[in-house]
Amino acid sequence: MKFSVQRAAFIRYLADVQRAISSKTTIEILKGLKLDLFEDGLTLTGSNADISIESIISIADEEANLEIKEPGSVVLPARFFNEIIKKLPADTLTIETDNQRFLTKITSGPAEFMINGIDAANFPHLPEVGVNTTLAIPSDILRQIINQTVIAISNQESRPMLTGVHILIDNGELLAVATDSHRLSQRRIKISGLESAHYNIIVPGKALNELARMLDESSKDVEIQIAENQILFILGHTSFYSRLLEGNYPDTERLIPKNSETTIEFNAPELLHAIERASLLSHEGRSNVVKLTLDVKEQRAVISGNSPEIGNVEEALNFSNLTGEDLEISFNPDYMKDALRSFGQTQTTLSFTMALRPFTLVPTESEGDFVQLITPMRTAN
Amino acid sequence: MKFSVQRAAFIRYLADVQRAISSKTTIEILKGLKLDLFEDGLTLTGSNADISIESIISIADEEANLEIKEPGSVVLPARFFNEIIKKLPADTLTIETDNQRFLTKITSGPAEFMINGIDAANFPHLPEVGVNTTLAIPSDILRQIINQTVIAISNQESRPMLTGVHILIDNGELLAVATDSHRLSQRRIKISGLESAHYNIIVPGKALNELARMLDESSKDVEIQIAENQILFILGHTSFYSRLLEGNYPDTERLIPKNSETTIEFNAPELLHAIERASLLSHEGRSNVVKLTLDVKEQRAVISGNSPEIGNVEEALNFSNLTGEDLEISFNPDYMKDALRSFGQTQTTLSFTMALRPFTLVPTESEGDFVQLITPMRTAN
Repeated sequence: MKFSVQRAAFIRYLADVQRAISSKTTIEILKGLKLDLFEDGLTLTGSNADISIESIISIADEEANLEIKEPGSVVLPARFFNEIIKKLPADTLTIETDNQRFLTKITSGPAEFMINGIDAANFPHLPEVGVNTTLAIPSDILRQIINQTVIAISNQESRPMLTGVHILIDNGELLAVATDSHRLSQRRIKISGLESAHYNIIVPGKALNELARMLDESSKDVEIQIAENQILFILGHTSFYSRLLEGNYPDTERLIPKNSETTIEFNAPELLHAIERASLLSHEGRSNVVKLTLDVKEQRAVISGNSPEIGNVEEALNFSNLTGEDLEISFNPDYMKDALRSFGQTQTTLSFTMALRPFTLVPTESEGDFVQLITPMRTAN
Repeated sequence: MKFSVQRAAFIRYLADVQRAISSKTTIEILKGLKLDLFEDGLTLTGSNADISIESIISIADEEANLEIKEPGSVVLPARFFNEIIKKLPADTLTIETDNQRFLTKITSGPAEFMINGIDAANFPHLPEVGVNTTLAIPSDILRQIINQTVIAISNQESRPMLTGVHILIDNGELLAVATDSHRLSQRRIKISGLESAHYNIIVPGKALNELARMLDESSKDVEIQIAENQILFILGHTSFYSRLLEGNYPDTERLIPKNSETTIEFNAPELLHAIERASLLSHEGRSNVVKLTLDVKEQRAVISGNSPEIGNVEEALNFSNLTGEDLEISFNPDYMKDALRSFGQTQTTLSFTMALRPFTLVPTESEGDFVQLITPMRTAN
């Protein structure tokens, strides 16, 4: 194998593939980056147990200016390779592997590295998705759906399904739900072109988090292929594979209350900052909890938090449209912060039934499409 | 105690004092920030076993707009206080302490914090420096002297003196030296106004590191007072106290070789980058070492590094004025990197005697004023 390439462009391709490679894996070859040089391009591949990423540098990419001298393959230690490429002195680099011992020479200007490579034949094969149906979702919308729901996944492997986001595609509509059983986030959106698609899958949250970082704010389509136990996202020259979680996701529809006794509207960023203040002290206490007190007659909303050792905090909130019954409700401020951050610069409506029943937050403007649900906490007082 | 102050200015004063406060100390009251409100200003004080910082907000500071309602003192938990102040909602904040129980109310806009304070009478007193002689060194020069020498201090408490920088003031000249016994950095500089001063002190390196972060690039004088076991730096409204290390610093003058067998010149940043590449692999091996090979007849300088597991690297270096004997010398690349970074954008001259004797680096332009010395390593091959 032998090729030369422009370093700056090569670094960009490398960065995407690097996301799939963990230096902590116990499978030695997965610490490696696979390079496959063909007649018309170079494929970089990284993989871990859950996701695989493949990026193709075509000879047509003028910025990369890939010059193919001799096709071939090798696996190189990813972390070192990455650091070496980043620190090379010249704009161009040349990589040459001897096809017997896989000893690889990296040259750039006066610097010459000799690195022990591994036979690429030992690298695991990428999953075969093998379906012909391709869905398309604009990059910015996919990114938004992921960022809005993935906040509510569980980090606990004891219920593996809850570490994923449940995605239902039906009737031209995409429904994404995540819950860790203390809070839930649900996004529903009509996407044109999905009219004849029917899917019911659970995608690992970690994979979606990595994917979201690779998605840009453009409306360029991301192509999606879904098979029995794999999903493939195609972003231009990069393919992102994730396994799917098996099993039946719990029925979350019934968790979202249909009615409410008390409702109130806040500016989401303003409420977020007030919660941040109220939680400054509660983080230190044994139970991380803040209290919201709504007095309908006095038209007063107060958030408070306390830590027996440090002190307490109280703040009267700005709000609008407080109606219904008086209420005193306690909750984990971290859940509320995650939910409010996902709303961005909007008004949000909070709807409560009772002090110990879950309550919802929705963007005031577009009710129904995006719901955050938080289970309150029982407190001593 | 009661006062109000502009939040943005208050945060700037707080940040300086915060440097002296560690949340890891076992002395509970030193986790606190002391506030002393007088008729004409507010003094903030933080301290740990080694350094103390005091910052005075005067009623004359228009940006701070300090309004004094009732003098008094209190100690507040520093970390919380800092976080609270940073997150307050309004431009102004008011602090009020009840002088019996030291319960402290912090208000800003609608937010109200009640924090348990401590009687300021329990806070340790600041050291009394009690000398009348004041030296003055421009801020930018002091910062440079510290940054150039403090890199070579030892981190090991087994020889406490080597954790400090040795400072000698005599004949209008300041000499600063640090060594961890593997490398040494020495800076010598004439400073006008020091003609009649004579000092021989060891200042803890950690204190100097903190001080350097507070020094700006201006030529504004920093006032310095030195007593038996304390040093005080006065930077405008802020006083920085450090204890001095006791004992006799080793005689370092004799360590610096007077003659050399081989000399060579490099561009400091270029050599730094080459060393960074050569050390990429050696960091992984058991001994972190790179090798420099100088061939005078061929006029060739090569840096190389290797790790048996990963591979090796070799690079021909750009240089000028290579004269003397051929040489092959091995050294810890981290020492070399620290030394080269301290030179900035200049040419540097390296002078060697023998492969196992210490060698020196000096800026080519101003020999003698600034010397870095590195002890090479013995290697198997």
